[in-house]
Amino acid sequence: MSILAVGSIAFDTIKTPFGEANDIVGGALTHFSVSASFFTDVNLVGVVGDDFGEEQMRVFAGRPIDLAGVERAAGKTFRWGGEYSHNLNNRETLFTELNVFESYRPSLPESHKNPDIVYLGNIHPGLQLEVINQVESRRLVGLDSMNLWIETTPDDLRQVLRHVDVLKLDDSEVRQLSGQYNLRKAAASIGEMGPAMLVATRGAHGSLLFNGQDVFAAPTYPLEVDEVDPTGAGDSFAGGFFGYLAQNPVIDDAVLRRAAVFGNVMGSFCVEDFGTRRLQRLQWDEILERFHKVKELTHFEDLET
Amino acid sequence: MSILAVGSIAFDTIKTPFGEANDIVGGALTHFSVSASFFTDVNLVGVVGDDFGEEQMRVFAGRPIDLAGVERAAGKTFRWGGEYSHNLNNRETLFTELNVFESYRPSLPESHKNPDIVYLGNIHPGLQLEVINQVESRRLVGLDSMNLWIETTPDDLRQVLRHVDVLKLDDSEVRQLSGQYNLRKAAASIGEMGPAMLVATRGAHGSLLFNGQDVFAAPTYPLEVDEVDPTGAGDSFAGGFFGYLAQNPVIDDAVLRRAAVFGNVMGSFCVEDFGTRRLQRLQWDEILERFHKVKELTHFEDLET
Repeated sequence: MSILAVGSIAFDTIKTPFGEANDIVGGALTHFSVSASFFTDVNLVGVVGDDFGEEQMRVFAGRPIDLAGVERAAGKTFRWGGEYSHNLNNRETLFTELNVFESYRPSLPESHKNPDIVYLGNIHPGLQLEVINQVESRRLVGLDSMNLWIETTPDDLRQVLRHVDVLKLDDSEVRQLSGQYNLRKAAASIGEMGPAMLVATRGAHGSLLFNGQDVFAAPTYPLEVDEVDPTGAGDSFAGGFFGYLAQNPVIDDAVLRRAAVFGNVMGSFCVEDFGTRRLQRLQWDEILERFHKVKELTHFEDLET
Repeated sequence: MSILAVGSIAFDTIKTPFGEANDIVGGALTHFSVSASFFTDVNLVGVVGDDFGEEQMRVFAGRPIDLAGVERAAGKTFRWGGEYSHNLNNRETLFTELNVFESYRPSLPESHKNPDIVYLGNIHPGLQLEVINQVESRRLVGLDSMNLWIETTPDDLRQVLRHVDVLKLDDSEVRQLSGQYNLRKAAASIGEMGPAMLVATRGAHGSLLFNGQDVFAAPTYPLEVDEVDPTGAGDSFAGGFFGYLAQNPVIDDAVLRRAAVFGNVMGSFCVEDFGTRRLQRLQWDEILERFHKVKELTHFEDLET
């Protein structure tokens, strides 16, 4: 079982009330793949510049992450800078430099054309479509997007959504895409666009999973330590979610619910340090321990009748 | 088992994207008591003006709500007006007229001085203190407050908190009161002020319950219908929470967790219509049904090992 994942690999510069990090390796695909690598093999499709050297590549080292589909182009790697306000809920983008991403056209190695799961990370929906069009067979397609594409490239997004089984957005993006405030109605409306399953993430408040009539609410684990940097939490969520799905030959409601919990667990670890630092030193036992803590966190006994 | 509850009874004027309601009966104590009346007897302590007639009193009719402690003063009833923005998360207060509340001093009837549970609704902490000082015996004290009192009357608030067992605030108020962003640390810090138990509500995202090392996350039920008016949701939560506690001679973690779920259930019904309208036509069977739906909503199976 493996995941084919496309998205951005980047240098991130991040300021939070707890400190800052300059030019650390980030990007949605990086966070996704490091997180998913705890669960499954991940084949990356993306692009880096000639400033992305051996040191940067170490972020993927020692993990079941295949870099054969990562192109090295002349020029600089995608760069993003952002600053978080005191409550970490508001993020201001300080700069975005597309660099090598500007002219990037994804090209899949032959070995990557028959994956188990395809994960189309948050990039221009036109590029997502180019990837899915090169895939010859797959079991399930997941997609992430954002307000920018919902606003500026709605037709491209609608086109790629027809191929998608599981859509992952935050709740405000779900409302924006569907035009529905009520999330049940939004899920039904998005189902008509293609994706039968919807995961609405809500930052520190957990996530809601919709699969037809089945609805599941997964809370975020309340951290013992301070939240340091929210960057990549949603991508780490997706890594845990789709990574766990890849482990399971049959995807039913029980598997989807556990996948949402694993997603939240991975997101909760991500925010404990800058970039992928926390996930780099994370152990599988810690993931299992937090999975069980989330079970305790949400358990309540039925009424004695 | 009964609850002695103090707070505001008001005329509310509310505008939301779904419509408006003028001079409907509201106020924290109204929402609290109608909600709690599904679970236990409620003895009210509050004040209304001479404009609060038989028609308005009907909001409490046919329920185990005792009005012997509600004073009728010369003048107008407390009035509040508010408007909600499109996403219902932002509320703008249009006006607040204290009216008879301005000179109100709570006075407890003899019959009310030995309640099971005391609920100090969101009013000036000086008045909350006057109430608790008149109580001769009780099993548990709950308190609600808000950013206004945290900012303007911190000393009075600290003084009344020493008498409190369960503090209910929204998460931003928890952070403001404790000076801690991390909610576990905030709960520990608030514990040192008096309240051993903390319920941090998070609007449409549910609530977190802290009792020593025990932490419970209760999600909000995703509504089938549109959310119409969030006014009173927190007070309805408190009614369900403390109402269920009043039913239980022993308050342990299992009871507290179910109480938080009942709180969320009552809050989720409240927002389905303006004011207390939805609770007025609510049936006990519907409460139980939603309680069980929340159980389904959060259940996930352990890993097969």
